[in-house]
Amino acid sequence: MTASTIAQLLGTELPLIQAPMAGAQGSAMAIAVSNAGALGSLPCAMLAPDAIRAEIEAIRNAVGSKPYNVNFFCHHTPTPDAAREEAWRKALAPYYSEFGIDPANIPAGAGRNPFSDAAADVLEAFKPPVVSFHFGLPSEALLARVRGWSAKILSSATTVEEAQWLAARGVDAVIAQGLEAGGHRGHFLSHDLSRQVGTFALLPLVVKAVKVPVIAAGGIVDAASARAAMAMGAAGVQVGTSYLLCPEATISGVHRAALSGNEEARRHTALTNLFTGRPARGIMNRVMRELGPLSATPPEFPLATAAIAPLRAKAEGQGTGDFSPLWSGQNASGCKPIGAAELTREIAAGLRA
Amino acid sequence: MTASTIAQLLGTELPLIQAPMAGAQGSAMAIAVSNAGALGSLPCAMLAPDAIRAEIEAIRNAVGSKPYNVNFFCHHTPTPDAAREEAWRKALAPYYSEFGIDPANIPAGAGRNPFSDAAADVLEAFKPPVVSFHFGLPSEALLARVRGWSAKILSSATTVEEAQWLAARGVDAVIAQGLEAGGHRGHFLSHDLSRQVGTFALLPLVVKAVKVPVIAAGGIVDAASARAAMAMGAAGVQVGTSYLLCPEATISGVHRAALSGNEEARRHTALTNLFTGRPARGIMNRVMRELGPLSATPPEFPLATAAIAPLRAKAEGQGTGDFSPLWSGQNASGCKPIGAAELTREIAAGLRA
Repeated sequence: MTASTIAQLLGTELPLIQAPMAGAQGSAMAIAVSNAGALGSLPCAMLAPDAIRAEIEAIRNAVGSKPYNVNFFCHHTPTPDAAREEAWRKALAPYYSEFGIDPANIPAGAGRNPFSDAAADVLEAFKPPVVSFHFGLPSEALLARVRGWSAKILSSATTVEEAQWLAARGVDAVIAQGLEAGGHRGHFLSHDLSRQVGTFALLPLVVKAVKVPVIAAGGIVDAASARAAMAMGAAGVQVGTSYLLCPEATISGVHRAALSGNEEARRHTALTNLFTGRPARGIMNRVMRELGPLSATPPEFPLATAAIAPLRAKAEGQGTGDFSPLWSGQNASGCKPIGAAELTREIAAGLRA
Repeated sequence: MTASTIAQLLGTELPLIQAPMAGAQGSAMAIAVSNAGALGSLPCAMLAPDAIRAEIEAIRNAVGSKPYNVNFFCHHTPTPDAAREEAWRKALAPYYSEFGIDPANIPAGAGRNPFSDAAADVLEAFKPPVVSFHFGLPSEALLARVRGWSAKILSSATTVEEAQWLAARGVDAVIAQGLEAGGHRGHFLSHDLSRQVGTFALLPLVVKAVKVPVIAAGGIVDAASARAAMAMGAAGVQVGTSYLLCPEATISGVHRAALSGNEEARRHTALTNLFTGRPARGIMNRVMRELGPLSATPPEFPLATAAIAPLRAKAEGQGTGDFSPLWSGQNASGCKPIGAAELTREIAAGLRA
């Protein structure tokens, strides 16, 4: 266990990271959080290089010398498989009929981009002080580029083995992502979901297994849970779901409604691979109930996204989240419609000695 | 949230309950724990009335006026279904051949008994101060008998809805059993496993949802995790797995070996219904890998037990736990071959102000 917190490592006032949430927030949230003394994060998985550049410029202009984090997925982009794509569209066919969608007009599309030389080219101009990864790490060559400007490097571990793997490759801190967490599971060594464990088990096991600082994620939603994670040896915490009702979040109206609506409904989340091809936690909805929540049919991540996207758009147009990824952790009780800076200060109350 | 701890409610020195673990411990462990100031528990699900009487007598003689807990399952005993039994034996047939077992000689058998008037008759003579239940609560008439001698009544909740259901029926405290916990899941309102959540999410949600004290279970393995659970609003903690290597535990040699052996192997647990018919968490082994870990084939709880029992016996005779329930929570790092009293004192260090 280390005596230092990630505040010392990352140069923030607080040992608190706002979890990067692709598709749910951009620079506005990162700015609010970094200016409040925690580490704001910009998720780049759904941004083209030009958009990454514009967003980082916005952050830099607003936070001055305060640290911020840019986050990337680092999956291998799969080769499209026509048979799997066809099977997936066949599974969705009754819904296309229901919503009057012509499947012939649905474009293919990756949906999520892995970290790349093009992205590194953009970053190099800004030298972001922290870069975090999900789904492992990029190639050694790409990682060397990030190390080149002395960025602190973080990545998610969902098992002890993944934490050890990351530590052996020199990450500066490991994010221990417990099963409670919302959005995509970060697992990359084994796809066996029975290996995914709750924060109460994962965090102390990872703290014992690696020498680098460990950041707790999954079920950290307020001051009390942040304090508990620190008591279990975390050097810092990463909070995602609680920020989703902040005005800085860019989630859809149906997502906002699901998070702020019926408590019993929002408590029922599940891991589903229907929206992207990889298991991610969201609030249970119609398509998850009817086709999953986990299914062998969707194409490999991120190729499942394209075929379900028009259903999501149509359904949202009719005011329902039946086909939307309603990403949420298992505890959404920390969600509040208050500014991200104010929420950061509330959570931080649990992190002060 | 309540200011009182379960120590005040139950009359113990410490807000710590040793989890009842049927088949893994008897009166010896309960005695050691109660005498150390926590609440020792006697699991009665696998005991006939005479055995319950003998075990309680042993506890009473050894602990004097100190409180102790007797624990019961309260499932409905299902009607045997010949077709499901046949399907289950068919699934196991290759293993019967491998081990030279004649399936014609395997007796049927319930395996686990629910709380009953016969059990209540035994208890009435002793008036045990605490009675805890798993899988909900017994009938109102049976519960009234327990209330008749002013026993404190506890039961497990795996969801907010179950906690509210139990609180509405007058339990004195709710045990919030997070997904990390070893052994049988206590769920009883919904059998949808996607509703089962980690301790880091479940505990604060249950604490907010009910007025009775909440006991945290699942991933509480040592002083640090006990302290963290209290910081999240628990009025006490229940610890199971960590006690399994104590000399007072009655687990098999293969179970002991699995818990004390290779750390990577013991970290891989899963919920499986192969051993009893209900999902319970144990260390992954051969039969779980090959037939499950979850399967639609086994008969309803507890009827799955009979057909797999001879395989377990044969395999254990050959020194392997390939067919044994190796019950364990997701964090077995608290297991130590030390006396249950000493372990209780070590965990209790996290519970003192």
